[in-house]
Amino acid sequence: MIRHFDKASILEAESFFRRDLINSLSGYKSLNLIGTKNKIGTTNLSPFSQVFHIGATPPTVGVLFRPHTVERHTLENILETGFFTLNHVTEEFYKEAHQTAARYEESEFEAVGLKEVYFDNFFAPFVASSPVKVACSLLESITLQVNETVLVVGSIEHVYVEDKGLNADGSLDLEKLGTVTCSGLDTYYLGKKLARLSYPKPGKPLQEI
Amino acid sequence: MIRHFDKASILEAESFFRRDLINSLSGYKSLNLIGTKNKIGTTNLSPFSQVFHIGATPPTVGVLFRPHTVERHTLENILETGFFTLNHVTEEFYKEAHQTAARYEESEFEAVGLKEVYFDNFFAPFVASSPVKVACSLLESITLQVNETVLVVGSIEHVYVEDKGLNADGSLDLEKLGTVTCSGLDTYYLGKKLARLSYPKPGKPLQEI
Repeated sequence: MIRHFDKASILEAESFFRRDLINSLSGYKSLNLIGTKNKIGTTNLSPFSQVFHIGATPPTVGVLFRPHTVERHTLENILETGFFTLNHVTEEFYKEAHQTAARYEESEFEAVGLKEVYFDNFFAPFVASSPVKVACSLLESITLQVNETVLVVGSIEHVYVEDKGLNADGSLDLEKLGTVTCSGLDTYYLGKKLARLSYPKPGKPLQEI
Repeated sequence: MIRHFDKASILEAESFFRRDLINSLSGYKSLNLIGTKNKIGTTNLSPFSQVFHIGATPPTVGVLFRPHTVERHTLENILETGFFTLNHVTEEFYKEAHQTAARYEESEFEAVGLKEVYFDNFFAPFVASSPVKVACSLLESITLQVNETVLVVGSIEHVYVEDKGLNADGSLDLEKLGTVTCSGLDTYYLGKKLARLSYPKPGKPLQEI
């Protein structure tokens, strides 16, 4: 059986139903903890599921921020200082990662018990236990007319990855790294690999590589 | 052991290495087939991993397009006609989904053997076998200065979901739906649920819900 919702019925639904449904529609989402620090030295850590690849040359990443939600400190710190970090989340600390979304007055690192660490004099803090850490500097921020969400475009300055998860061709083995994915607002998953597929060409059968 | 790449070493690496590494950094990605049709009636289908939630009120989704890649027909059709569909991919047809990225002259639906279907007089085609189908109309397109990728902002007009995967609160059960996720350019996964977690508040222990 197929359930159908048109735009009118979505807008008439209870707000929690609309929020959970629409948040789920894109499918599995990337999950990263974003680490920042404000000018007076207070660190901040918050989970984000709207981080996406923009380009490899130059290496560039995008993050979409909703201005009036719990992620506000993160956006303010990025606009104020120009720096942030992305940190993959694993099964060992996904509950602490979820808890960083609570509205703390103090640093979320201390509040939830995740250790902050610094490398190569980069201004923003990394999550020590994360198997993939990415240092980014602010390139551009764009406010979308539709709902005033803010797209932050970041330049990738440093990548730190546990070598057990780095394939010879540069791709990451997310299963070996233990990276967690999420859906909607609050559901967490591990990945179970189906296959890696060869480059697709017309008339040529795909192979698992 | 941690491997460190700074921006200079990323830019000096072989292009395949840079592409695979940077494409993997965000973690697991959403996977959707985007269905479009041009003005003269030729349909197009292509896989996208840069689809993300923008907002629930109004229901809005974002897709990032690289102008000079295989996805070009999709972007041209959206800008020309104003309509597109998002379709979740399952284990049953993820290889056909991957194959739609080949450079076909004819419609990818026919070329790879996926059936197109239409509902509610919506202009763009859906993938019949997809458990989650979303009809979108073009709201806004924004070209990013950094590399001329194009962000398409879509208004969600219709949602069709198999009811086995629709929870009472509106969220989707991606495991029951069989939705596939991907990483990098060519690796596909199913999700294995860890937990759904309660709303985080300072000082309040999280619960699995």
